[in-house]
Amino acid sequence: MLVFAATAQAGTGPEKISERARAIQARAINLDTHLDTPALFSQPGWKITDRHSFQGDGSQIDYPRMLEGGLDGGFWVIFTGQGERDAAGNLKARDAGLVRLSEIREMVAANPDKFELATTADDAARIKAAGKKSVYISMENAYPLEHDPSLLGFYYKQGLRMLSLAHISHNDFADSAGMGVAPAGEHGGLSDKGKAMIAEANRLGIILDQSHASNAVFDQMLELSRAPIILSHSGAYDVFAHSRNIDDKRIRALAKKGGVIQVNSLGGYLIDTGATPEYRAERRKVYESFGDRHDLSDAEREQVKARMAELDAKYHIRKADFDDYMRHLLHIIKVAGWEHVGLGADWDGGGGVDGYEDITALPKVVQALLDAGYDERQIGGILGGNTVRLIRDVQALADPAAVKAALE
Amino acid sequence: MLVFAATAQAGTGPEKISERARAIQARAINLDTHLDTPALFSQPGWKITDRHSFQGDGSQIDYPRMLEGGLDGGFWVIFTGQGERDAAGNLKARDAGLVRLSEIREMVAANPDKFELATTADDAARIKAAGKKSVYISMENAYPLEHDPSLLGFYYKQGLRMLSLAHISHNDFADSAGMGVAPAGEHGGLSDKGKAMIAEANRLGIILDQSHASNAVFDQMLELSRAPIILSHSGAYDVFAHSRNIDDKRIRALAKKGGVIQVNSLGGYLIDTGATPEYRAERRKVYESFGDRHDLSDAEREQVKARMAELDAKYHIRKADFDDYMRHLLHIIKVAGWEHVGLGADWDGGGGVDGYEDITALPKVVQALLDAGYDERQIGGILGGNTVRLIRDVQALADPAAVKAALE
Repeated sequence: MLVFAATAQAGTGPEKISERARAIQARAINLDTHLDTPALFSQPGWKITDRHSFQGDGSQIDYPRMLEGGLDGGFWVIFTGQGERDAAGNLKARDAGLVRLSEIREMVAANPDKFELATTADDAARIKAAGKKSVYISMENAYPLEHDPSLLGFYYKQGLRMLSLAHISHNDFADSAGMGVAPAGEHGGLSDKGKAMIAEANRLGIILDQSHASNAVFDQMLELSRAPIILSHSGAYDVFAHSRNIDDKRIRALAKKGGVIQVNSLGGYLIDTGATPEYRAERRKVYESFGDRHDLSDAEREQVKARMAELDAKYHIRKADFDDYMRHLLHIIKVAGWEHVGLGADWDGGGGVDGYEDITALPKVVQALLDAGYDERQIGGILGGNTVRLIRDVQALADPAAVKAALE
Repeated sequence: MLVFAATAQAGTGPEKISERARAIQARAINLDTHLDTPALFSQPGWKITDRHSFQGDGSQIDYPRMLEGGLDGGFWVIFTGQGERDAAGNLKARDAGLVRLSEIREMVAANPDKFELATTADDAARIKAAGKKSVYISMENAYPLEHDPSLLGFYYKQGLRMLSLAHISHNDFADSAGMGVAPAGEHGGLSDKGKAMIAEANRLGIILDQSHASNAVFDQMLELSRAPIILSHSGAYDVFAHSRNIDDKRIRALAKKGGVIQVNSLGGYLIDTGATPEYRAERRKVYESFGDRHDLSDAEREQVKARMAELDAKYHIRKADFDDYMRHLLHIIKVAGWEHVGLGADWDGGGGVDGYEDITALPKVVQALLDAGYDERQIGGILGGNTVRLIRDVQALADPAAVKAALE
């Protein structure tokens, strides 16, 4: 059990960040492997170069806050919610994925002095040294590839270096872990199309990401992949039994094969919040009453917040906090070994807890790791060094001829 | 026969641009419908915001020269040279087209104060009023769609508003006009895939461009298309009998259906230069001796120029000049009527002649049209008004439900 000496509020983590923590972070390469911020790029008026606040618009990452929190970059996600698995749905997903890819590249093109596309292990340090932020590209849910899996080659050419097969429901490639209790499998893990995708990702040196997929997918992916894999944003099942988390046995198997697990900060995966189906349905209705719009006015946003607070009170919802996050992180470090752990907080994708609400709070993790007795080398690995090593290892196992052909 | 009062050199056009010509151009919307400049975007070190010169690096369009020449924008081309028509070739073309699309959008994203993506007829005037340059997107050669024609919907979503089916050789969609003497047809005009593409382009309000396709394609496209069509960069066959040019009968048929023909300035299509197969083979060897590289040093570029000049002298090559360009333009205006003519000089795609070497020379056309007796309304139409009308007409004939679905 962790005890933080000086916290403003129980469970919200260290109040002060030491000089040592700041120095360690400055020397480390700080990467988060699951940044859902690209979903905001198309929101009218939202700019990555403006300073927003979580309290203001709910966002968690932007350039000024990356500077403040010391984040050097990470994997920026092409996320596509799973929809209909028919021809029309697959086409729509195909377009959505390509549009998001373009939006990420356009954000980089628009800010050449602040961001740079990163595709190799060495890029992270080089881009940090140049005073810029790394933009590695990943895909969460291979749904955009269902219409035509050969598009993976195009995505690779444009910078994609990490790929997960499924999101919160099964698709043509793989079974999902679902949203609490694992659903019955459809493929018993990977489908043949999923297996083919793994082979192709290996050939190109694209990191395979198991987060969101079922345990059977984990087992089969670990077996089939010629390269180590990642869990880009996951928690510990042995800390909280939720189907999105992974058990200690599998964490050890992941580490043994050279993989890494990046710890998620999404509250509902960290603790039992007491959320019931009725609570979730009522929350859903609130969003629906605003037409599921992303462009809420400030007044509307306040209304949503107030109604959510009422619901939280009505259902006695417990909110996860920074201590809960650290509990998962420290447990996973112990199980996997520090060389196999990193951070994937699911910023702008549902991540964040009390006391760890946006990227400006990243230094708290450094301080908490110091307080827990970890040294600079270990903390540097967790902050990003382990991810850089994984990128290098996976790319070293790629087929050079396939890579050359794809880049031509 | 035109006579220019004050030319620096025979055939190179008006030496002085009158105040009236400048004023007319300033009030007009000046659009060129075939800008091949996107092919330069990926050249290391080449920047659209730098001022280059045709004498220096052979390029013909950049932002400073657009300002100087008064070009307000145009259709920026996704060009793909026709390669192998097998699965591998089609995939390579699929990727090349998507990459070029991305490069155009990234150029716009990188220069939000200078360029703006244009997708509707009204955008041209609005963007000019905002002090920026219009970037309409077109595709020359539908080869990138052979692997998967459904990608047209994605291109539309990302801004594509004009499409030609074939380039200098036949493909799966249509027969080409070839490079001088029309080759035997493969499909007898359009293939079934080509006809389906026409229907889909009509549905979405994408302008169909016949330039480079065979006469049979012209006849069938004009018959099949529910909307008027464009020849984005073509010349007059009755002025110079070259398979890339279009005869007067077809120009009249085009105009009758509300279409426009945009006059090309590629020398070899304007006059008989005396180029023989042997001459072309020797030129080819010069390029090959430099490995067909695009990144020639200044010294190497000078060497290429010197060797080309030697070849031109050896084969007594005649070079087309500004008068030759105007001969095509004025002939076409007479045949089509001024409402059905515009400019598509093939800048950065082989266009340009002595005295009309890059976009800075555009005011010469305005002066020459004034000298030929055309008035402001007519000249404004030719400079871009007719193109704007065509965009409006084609989009008005689109299927609103298809457009709505594609943009979702």
